[in-house]
Amino acid sequence: MITSLVAAAEDAFWPYSALPPERIALFLEKIAEEILALGDALLDFASAETALPRERLTGERMRTVNQLRMFAGVVRNGTWKDVRIDPALPDRTPMRRPDLRRTLIPVGPVAIWAASNFPLAFSVAGGDTASALAAGCPVIVKAHPGHPQTSELVASAIRKAIAALGLPNGVFGMVQGSSPDISIKLVTHPGVKAGAFTGSLTAGRALFDAASKRLEPIPFFAEMGSVNPVFVLSGASAERGDAIVDGLVQSVNMGVGQFCTSPGVVVGMDVGMALDRFAEQLRFKFSQAKGGTMLTTGIAKAYCDAVDRIQSIKGVRTTRGDSPAPQPVLFEVNASTFLANPDLRHEVFGPCTILVRCASQVEMESVARSLEGSLTATFHGTAGDLRAQPKLLTMMANKAGRLVFNGFPTGVEVCDAMQHGGPYPSTTDARFTSVGSAAIARFARPICFQDCPEEFLPAELR
Amino acid sequence: MITSLVAAAEDAFWPYSALPPERIALFLEKIAEEILALGDALLDFASAETALPRERLTGERMRTVNQLRMFAGVVRNGTWKDVRIDPALPDRTPMRRPDLRRTLIPVGPVAIWAASNFPLAFSVAGGDTASALAAGCPVIVKAHPGHPQTSELVASAIRKAIAALGLPNGVFGMVQGSSPDISIKLVTHPGVKAGAFTGSLTAGRALFDAASKRLEPIPFFAEMGSVNPVFVLSGASAERGDAIVDGLVQSVNMGVGQFCTSPGVVVGMDVGMALDRFAEQLRFKFSQAKGGTMLTTGIAKAYCDAVDRIQSIKGVRTTRGDSPAPQPVLFEVNASTFLANPDLRHEVFGPCTILVRCASQVEMESVARSLEGSLTATFHGTAGDLRAQPKLLTMMANKAGRLVFNGFPTGVEVCDAMQHGGPYPSTTDARFTSVGSAAIARFARPICFQDCPEEFLPAELR
Repeated sequence: MITSLVAAAEDAFWPYSALPPERIALFLEKIAEEILALGDALLDFASAETALPRERLTGERMRTVNQLRMFAGVVRNGTWKDVRIDPALPDRTPMRRPDLRRTLIPVGPVAIWAASNFPLAFSVAGGDTASALAAGCPVIVKAHPGHPQTSELVASAIRKAIAALGLPNGVFGMVQGSSPDISIKLVTHPGVKAGAFTGSLTAGRALFDAASKRLEPIPFFAEMGSVNPVFVLSGASAERGDAIVDGLVQSVNMGVGQFCTSPGVVVGMDVGMALDRFAEQLRFKFSQAKGGTMLTTGIAKAYCDAVDRIQSIKGVRTTRGDSPAPQPVLFEVNASTFLANPDLRHEVFGPCTILVRCASQVEMESVARSLEGSLTATFHGTAGDLRAQPKLLTMMANKAGRLVFNGFPTGVEVCDAMQHGGPYPSTTDARFTSVGSAAIARFARPICFQDCPEEFLPAELR
Repeated sequence: MITSLVAAAEDAFWPYSALPPERIALFLEKIAEEILALGDALLDFASAETALPRERLTGERMRTVNQLRMFAGVVRNGTWKDVRIDPALPDRTPMRRPDLRRTLIPVGPVAIWAASNFPLAFSVAGGDTASALAAGCPVIVKAHPGHPQTSELVASAIRKAIAALGLPNGVFGMVQGSSPDISIKLVTHPGVKAGAFTGSLTAGRALFDAASKRLEPIPFFAEMGSVNPVFVLSGASAERGDAIVDGLVQSVNMGVGQFCTSPGVVVGMDVGMALDRFAEQLRFKFSQAKGGTMLTTGIAKAYCDAVDRIQSIKGVRTTRGDSPAPQPVLFEVNASTFLANPDLRHEVFGPCTILVRCASQVEMESVARSLEGSLTATFHGTAGDLRAQPKLLTMMANKAGRLVFNGFPTGVEVCDAMQHGGPYPSTTDARFTSVGSAAIARFARPICFQDCPEEFLPAELR
């Protein structure tokens, strides 16, 4: 199965990568059109398979379609190829400089592991697929076992677009299944030239290791665990603590906490009464919050187990939400408990967060220093708060891919300036992003033409 | 030793990375100035330690100095940060778009393994160091054991520049030694955030593996073995075979063949008499060519052993140069011998090349298909030759980082459009280059600021 899929992708690579940008743009737009043409059936299947509400899935479908259209625009515009031309200097001494022209070409067939938590936007025709196809790479998707029917439907939309544009079938392939063997076979196949993954640290790391150990190692971008710390500084919590609490509870519980940017750690400064009031409000809101059905029973079980494990740690105060498990959970600890328990610093996928109370700036800096890499770091602070914390800002800039000010990390814009990728373990290579137009850079490499006759140059270099 | 060097680099990282671009530019220029101020002593030591002629080293010193100055220009200009700004859309429904601004920040302390074959331009203050310092990263150099005194001298120049600009000492560190333990300690130290290497496949791969297996894997750019195939097409060899022979003999023997872009395989089309004449001339020129002292006795021994091994393969015709070993060597084989012996397709570091005679276009394509990734691929062909070979061009574009037309791959321009990095095993990540201004991209990562108050934004995002 894998062998024939990769062989088809390899055969498709040259004709596909040689297409004029306009054809690739039309292809991406056609996929978007065919996804919309699936109509309610797509939403019905996705909702049944993932328990995500229809409204959310309608929004996610729009996001998926917009991503495909955005990459069509990126391909048409062409500036992503970062064309560089150094013309010949025939009279230079002691030696002439040759004519040198540099553009980007696709790396080859790309393997993509679909995520569970975005059955459309990070799945079969999600951002990874859109950016790889935009770069000129055939794609082989390992569908997520959490939504096989949804995956088949979207795959059928892509196949219709392939047929409509008369492209080779091997431009897109998909494999279903939940055995790790399938994934390892795919990532180690010599015909696969790059990989992208969204999911757990364990699975992502296993695939990254397999990709790196190959006879020919390949770039493997895995987006994995992220705690997305939120720092609540004293001025801000005094000024608008209740509003921050409301936003935080909403952010933690959005989509039953199943977002890679869900805020898993809240670090507050215990100065005056502001944090007491903040914690009290947070406890109250969490105690009233309702849970929801999680994406899969496996994810729900892992969440409940993690919650029980954390609750049993000495010094942890637990507030559970108002519903049967999996329910929203707030943990509270002081800084020394947080620092003494590395388990508190790993992502728990689900609607819980840990409030860490710091008695001083030094403690807050120690907590910040103890954190691993994250996709995001957030600050709630007045200008005065932030001015008093230059070290904290620098420290977190070196631990995150996106810094959010007086907002919440959930809600990842798909745009040019987005960076969805931070230091390990949030991703395996913080130099790239999996969201936004820059995501295309993962699947292309530079090539330089030296003294190439014009007729053999790629169009953008002529 | 490693521990204290990395600790110093970590301490230096924040103050250094926070410097205004102008200060970093001045620092790079000051290093260049201090290298020139070393005067003849530098050339004397380098020549004594590497056996490279003074004239070559004078040129290499200029290249080193120019690289540093080029990166000063890159830093001042600032466009390398690829700034992207998506302003807020406060009235967007259903949700406002926040203000998003993206720039690049340095990854952290970088470890650099100096090369043997460019004791100045790819060594202590070479392109890797210049690009990492330009990105805002402190550097720890593992000096090459082939030129320890030269390394110390250049290190002293960098230290003078650090003192002159009042920078923290940890911005630059160097460790000498030839034990692999030192290198493994360095690449696996948690404080090191990226690595760059130029050298053999064995050493480069071992370091890449160690970098990838870390608890926190780090990007590791290794530039390793490359055969740099040269295709001599029939029109060109008929039209100007003798000139191609002259250029080729010069390119293979330049610097006693100790260049990463040395042409190790020449693929010719056996049509009519042109290739007979070409081979005859090549044999004649090689038989007259003189050898030279190689960089180290270890490199000379490895070269002589490889030559003996290849000579003993059935079907290989060998022409040796006019001097004691290590001497220039020409091997000749037909396509089927070449295809049957994978050993013929690996880089031999030194002044030899293999002429592969193909009886047909199909054979030439099979030979091309059998080749591994290379830094370069070269075509000697008339417009008619090239038009007749669209498959060959595409195939080699997918196996090389730079395509050279009617020229020779040695001589790597330091400029914006250069790409010195190709598919494995020529490098570990073909998406990056180690020569030219784009080399800086290896050591920086994007960061996005969301709704950040202007006073806390990096200058380039305001």
